Amino acid sequence: MSEIRQNIATREWVIIATERAKRPEQFVREPRERITDRPIYAPDCPFCPGNEEIDLERLRLPEQGDWIVRVVANRFPALQERGMLQPNFSRFGHALAGIGHHEVVVESRFHNTCPALETIDEIELTLRANRQRGIALHGDPRIAQIIYFKNHGVSAGASLLHPHTQLLALPVVPHNIEDRIETAKRHYSAHWECVFCRMRNEEEHAGTRMLAQTDHFSAFVPYAALSPFHVWIMPHRHTASFSDATDPELRDLAVVLRDLLKRMYVGLGDPDYNYVIRTAPRRERTAPYLHWYMSVIPRVIRTAGFELGSGMYINTALPEASAEFLRNVKIADG
Amino acid sequence: MSEIRQNIATREWVIIATERAKRPEQFVREPRERITDRPIYAPDCPFCPGNEEIDLERLRLPEQGDWIVRVVANRFPALQERGMLQPNFSRFGHALAGIGHHEVVVESRFHNTCPALETIDEIELTLRANRQRGIALHGDPRIAQIIYFKNHGVSAGASLLHPHTQLLALPVVPHNIEDRIETAKRHYSAHWECVFCRMRNEEEHAGTRMLAQTDHFSAFVPYAALSPFHVWIMPHRHTASFSDATDPELRDLAVVLRDLLKRMYVGLGDPDYNYVIRTAPRRERTAPYLHWYMSVIPRVIRTAGFELGSGMYINTALPEASAEFLRNVKIADG
Repeated sequence: MSEIRQNIATREWVIIATERAKRPEQFVREPRERITDRPIYAPDCPFCPGNEEIDLERLRLPEQGDWIVRVVANRFPALQERGMLQPNFSRFGHALAGIGHHEVVVESRFHNTCPALETIDEIELTLRANRQRGIALHGDPRIAQIIYFKNHGVSAGASLLHPHTQLLALPVVPHNIEDRIETAKRHYSAHWECVFCRMRNEEEHAGTRMLAQTDHFSAFVPYAALSPFHVWIMPHRHTASFSDATDPELRDLAVVLRDLLKRMYVGLGDPDYNYVIRTAPRRERTAPYLHWYMSVIPRVIRTAGFELGSGMYINTALPEASAEFLRNVKIADG
Repeated sequence: MSEIRQNIATREWVIIATERAKRPEQFVREPRERITDRPIYAPDCPFCPGNEEIDLERLRLPEQGDWIVRVVANRFPALQERGMLQPNFSRFGHALAGIGHHEVVVESRFHNTCPALETIDEIELTLRANRQRGIALHGDPRIAQIIYFKNHGVSAGASLLHPHTQLLALPVVPHNIEDRIETAKRHYSAHWECVFCRMRNEEEHAGTRMLAQTDHFSAFVPYAALSPFHVWIMPHRHTASFSDATDPELRDLAVVLRDLLKRMYVGLGDPDYNYVIRTAPRRERTAPYLHWYMSVIPRVIRTAGFELGSGMYINTALPEASAEFLRNVKIADG
């Protein structure tokens, strides 16, 4: 019998379709070109050392000596940095000039790597660079919301091979995020608790979907996971904004994230995936009802008309089975 | 300069990314196997005449003689027809047994066709079959919402080649749909008008994004189209539920829909696409603030981490240019 589950924090429903369910092994990707078979350096890659476009550079870490991680303005930005917002309330709907920031965090000096194969230092610096740029962009009064995300692989929307993440700083709070905030606020008013803290506590207590628990983070497949191997990584400290993550937290997150991505890489055959950092809008950076976290979504199933028409998802793997599979993947330490 | 537009009815924001914008011609698909090169009949296709599984059949039109359109229960349903809902309010979130209906409308006797190549009669009967099954499934008190949708092509989620649409009858109203209803209701309270009627009137008045206007329907690229060639087809008569569409309306919709899909087929090289019918939940079948319509979404761009993390879209074509391109495609009549 299938089951329909609702996420208490987002109120999204998902169909856990056990009739169509596959064993987690069935999501393992066909063998293909390995990332490490690519050249370590590509002459035409704008992210490789030696090809840096210095006028686009926004940050390099470390600041002295060879950089390990670099932030650059996107050469083909979805939004432009210069200009006034000029809101225009037309009869069709609202419009704004496309003002904002679109930056790219280059995660490594090496062309032929990915987070699963990177060092913890590289991942930690990537997270720090994201945080630092997020704080800087919060200084722009035109900005309302920052979206931090990674696309790994073609089906996840990646167009450049050199490993990188992206930040898009928006002049509006997306409707979907406003709606989630409203839900969290309502839960807070009704129960005097953060719905995300509550969810984490319940997941830790149950244990069946847990993947990792460290000093600062818990990683788990959510009860109402939208797709196979969908994972949330949540900080223990109740903090609304990713910009307020501490150095020890980011170090710890780097360890947890690399462990998860390695398990996916080894266990599922390097699937395409996205990760996003869900964080508070600028105006609600210290809101007591919000809690930032990272969501990792392997692209192992396709969405179709049903998802477009309903906003619901059909998950063809039991969340508990996804978690068990990932827990059991054998990976080398270090 | 890019622009950020909001749809007045759904409140979704979209980035119209003119810096990355492509001319509509750039979305034309590479030549590939043509649908008409496939066999007209496939021995292992459960939807081809002669291979009918009669125990799964729910409807055939016409009822006498050779069927043209047939409705069958999905052999691998996402939801099961038998059972009690058994709501379970656990500490992780809500859960229900996976009760519902999952049916398939076979659009044609021919294996090697698609709506762009079908006759108007076939499309009309497909729409009628959807309506008739929708009305029947509304008779099940466990059902709250029906999602009508079509997946054309692999990247749009189609797994069987024989042309078909699907109905999923859900025991819950998806959160995303509840949210849209709330928005429409608020507009109705504030302005004493249906926000969808308003939008259609504004689009007809402006004309720049219009594709077709017939006795009963208007087709247009919405002002805040989520992706290139995204089209809404809206009935003129203010009706909340697709189940209340009349016979002349469905005939007219068949004409408008086939014309649009033919333009896409010829002009864009048979792109993969989805269409969905957005209709009122059962409990709000006659709600004055709701208005059913069809949304057609060609899969010409990929969604990535940004869309997952924000719920927003980046449209790399100007809606006005998408409309102009589709208007100018030359198609044979009849």
